[in-house]
Parts: sequence; structure tokens; C-alpha cells
Amino acid sequence: MPHDFSPVGFLGFDTFGTVVDWRNGVAREAEPFLKRHRMAVDPLDFADQWRALYEPSMEKVRSGERNWVKLDILHRENLEKVLENNGVDLDSIVDAELRDLNTAWHRLDPWPDAIEGLTRLKRKFPIGPLSNGNISAMLALARFGGLPWDVIVGAEISESYKPQSETYLKTAEAVGFPPQQVALVAAHNSDLAAARAVGFRTVFVRRPYEHGPLQQTDVRAEDNWDLCVETLTQAADALGC
Amino acid sequence: MPHDFSPVGFLGFDTFGTVVDWRNGVAREAEPFLKRHRMAVDPLDFADQWRALYEPSMEKVRSGERNWVKLDILHRENLEKVLENNGVDLDSIVDAELRDLNTAWHRLDPWPDAIEGLTRLKRKFPIGPLSNGNISAMLALARFGGLPWDVIVGAEISESYKPQSETYLKTAEAVGFPPQQVALVAAHNSDLAAARAVGFRTVFVRRPYEHGPLQQTDVRAEDNWDLCVETLTQAADALGC
Repeated sequence: MPHDFSPVGFLGFDTFGTVVDWRNGVAREAEPFLKRHRMAVDPLDFADQWRALYEPSMEKVRSGERNWVKLDILHRENLEKVLENNGVDLDSIVDAELRDLNTAWHRLDPWPDAIEGLTRLKRKFPIGPLSNGNISAMLALARFGGLPWDVIVGAEISESYKPQSETYLKTAEAVGFPPQQVALVAAHNSDLAAARAVGFRTVFVRRPYEHGPLQQTDVRAEDNWDLCVETLTQAADALGC
Repeated sequence: MPHDFSPVGFLGFDTFGTVVDWRNGVAREAEPFLKRHRMAVDPLDFADQWRALYEPSMEKVRSGERNWVKLDILHRENLEKVLENNGVDLDSIVDAELRDLNTAWHRLDPWPDAIEGLTRLKRKFPIGPLSNGNISAMLALARFGGLPWDVIVGAEISESYKPQSETYLKTAEAVGFPPQQVALVAAHNSDLAAARAVGFRTVFVRRPYEHGPLQQTDVRAEDNWDLCVETLTQAADALGC
């Protein structure tokens, strides 16, 4: 096998951005809500504003400022902030509507190469999300888009958020392999750097439009990752699947 | 849908005995080891002896006598006891051999109806093991036998052992449904009773040969479970899958 992936026993996948297109999906899911409430914000801009609160909200957990809570809860808190930032009176909106909008993150389309790529990779390797998303979100995404995961690992089973080392290490332990026999597949250089630091193999998938046409970050591999590809089908080619 | 399973959002499956045949599988995996070490014990008897230590070893965790450890560790401790009970000097056996034999529990054949039944049930419901087995054991079993799980939940994510209520409740919480919208599928009346006690729907699958031809326990449904079937394909029929 190329790139010496022969000892690898598990492929973990970053999911938001790497496997599914969160930006267009969240915008699509938010659009009827924004119209209904006569909000002037563009749906893609709304998705970006919501996503911008993602890292700072996880950072409060990583730093120990608050206890671990699942990402669905952080997304809900962040949604309320974004709505307030856009002048919405939260008291005017029924909870069921907010709950439904919050699960926009459960209904995101896979990138066009994802299903074929994962299906082929799964022939040779056990596969699963190694995401900051919680189990029910990953399960719903898999059912929505047909992602053929073998198992769901990552943040919730480790009660930590990437790039904390526990998220990778507890995932490796849970799937039954030492870190050296697990690979992370991700579109984000920082995620791969943290995984490599604990001994993982690394696969960079370039997703230059995750943040839209003007994306500035992660447009290329920033280190000598073990494998760098443009699509998950290309990863399957490279790994002989 | 019959039996009012329409609100159900997740089917959790007991695995050892309900989905896979542990007795014949463990006997098959143990046979070469027993021969190599000139042990006079019958492989099926050896499997029964090993399994007999399963409940008491989990009970020490449930009672709080010891902290939660994953089932692979309990199986390993129990294996050493069974070998000693059969007159084996453990110092004469290399660790790699014991490690390999211990993963007999990762290489068990599904019952003949399991793959078709699960594949059909999966069309309508998200499915996953709700087992006392740990994640890596369930993942290995799924890869070995082709079990099409969507997610792996149960003991390890809840750090508890069935029939403790936490195992069921934390599984429901992880997959994102209230207990009333989760069903347990199991061949064991005590497991179903505990699941029902926390609000789960219940599906009894009769496995009258799990313990061999002379089985005395769980040969029939002992309560009015929501659905009682002979096979997982029959469960799929009954649930309109």
C-alpha cells in the first residue's frame, strides 16, 4: 500500500467541512426562518456568523472555564447570540422553532465525492467521524446524507474538544488501536497537527470552498502530511481501496 | 405501523446471544488453543465456563466494588481464571496468545437471520448495539460479520453495565431521543424488563439455542413485550421494513 498505511486499523474523519458542506447546508436550512422573521441578513452570512462563535464557545470548555457540554448545546447558545446580534427579540420566537433551526447542523449535504470515497475506504478500513459534533448529530448527519460510518467517536466519547489531545487519544483507545495505527482525515491543518502530535497518521483533504469562494485558510497543506488529496475518492485511490 | 413503533427513533440491540452466536464462536476460536496446550476440556464447555464468569465480574462493577472497566478487561481476567480452574500454569503461556484468545469475543458469527434482518430494519430505523461489550469489540464484531450498525452505544459510552438504568438512559440521550422513543431488541427477558422500566419499547427475539440444545433460560417471552419474534427478519416484517 502506498504511504505505508498498512498498519492503520482505523480512519477517523473530521466531519464539518471535511465530509459535509456546513456553510451551504446551514444557509439552506436557515433561509425559511430568516424570511419568516423578516431578517435582512443573507443566509450564507448568517451561517458564517453562527460558525464564527463555534471556536470561542468550545474554547471555554477546553480552558476549563465551563464543564464539557455537547456541541448541540453550544450551537443553541450561539444561535441565540447570533439572533440577538441581528436585532431579534428571542421572546418573540417559540422554542420549537429554535430547536428545529438548531438541528440545521444535522441536515448537511456530503461533498460530492464523500459517499463514494467513504464507501471505498470502508472496504479496507473501519471508518468513523472523529468530530467535535456529538453522537446524535453525527448519527443524524449519517442518516441524512447516507454516510456509511462503522462507529461514531470523537468529542462526546472523550468529553473533550479537538484539538485537545484527549479527543484523539480516547478515540484511538475506544476503537482499539494505538495512536500510531489510527489516521485522521481532515481539511484543517491545525486538526492534523494536533493529531500528528499524539502519533496519528495524517490525511489532508483540500476543501478550498468550505468557507465560500473567498476562503483564506486551509487552502493548501501547510505541512508534510502523510497523504494530501483533493477528494475522498482520491484518498481511496491512494490507499488502494 | 403495527405495534405503534411509529414514534421510535432508534433501535438498540443486545448483541451477544441476540445478534451473534457467542457459544459456538468462542468454542471455535478456543479449540486450537486448547489442543495446543493439551487441555482435555471440550471447547463448548470451555465457552460455557468462560461465559459463566461474565455476570459475576460485571456485578462487581455494578455494585461499586470496583471502578468501571471495559468488558475486554473483564473477559481477560475471566479467561485467566478459567485456565487456572482447568489446571493451566499461566506462566507457561505467552501474553500474545492470551491476548489473541481473548479477542475470540470479537470474532463471532451472526445468527443466520441477523444480517438480512438488520439491513431491512436499518431502512426505517437508525440501529446500533446496546451491549455490555466495549466499542472496539462491537466494531470488530461488526467488521467480522458485516453487521450494518449506524452507531455503537451501550456500556462504554455510559460507563455502566446493563441492567443498570444508566446504560439505557445514557444511550437514549446519546442518540438524541427520549427513552419512550427508543426500543431495545434482546433475547433476554431481564434485559427487556430493565429497559421497559426506564420507558423503552421492547422487542423479544427468541434464541432458544444461545446456550446450546439444553437451554433452560429465556426459551420464551416472560412478559407482554411490545413485540415478540423468532428472528430479526420477522421483526423487520412486523415493523414494516
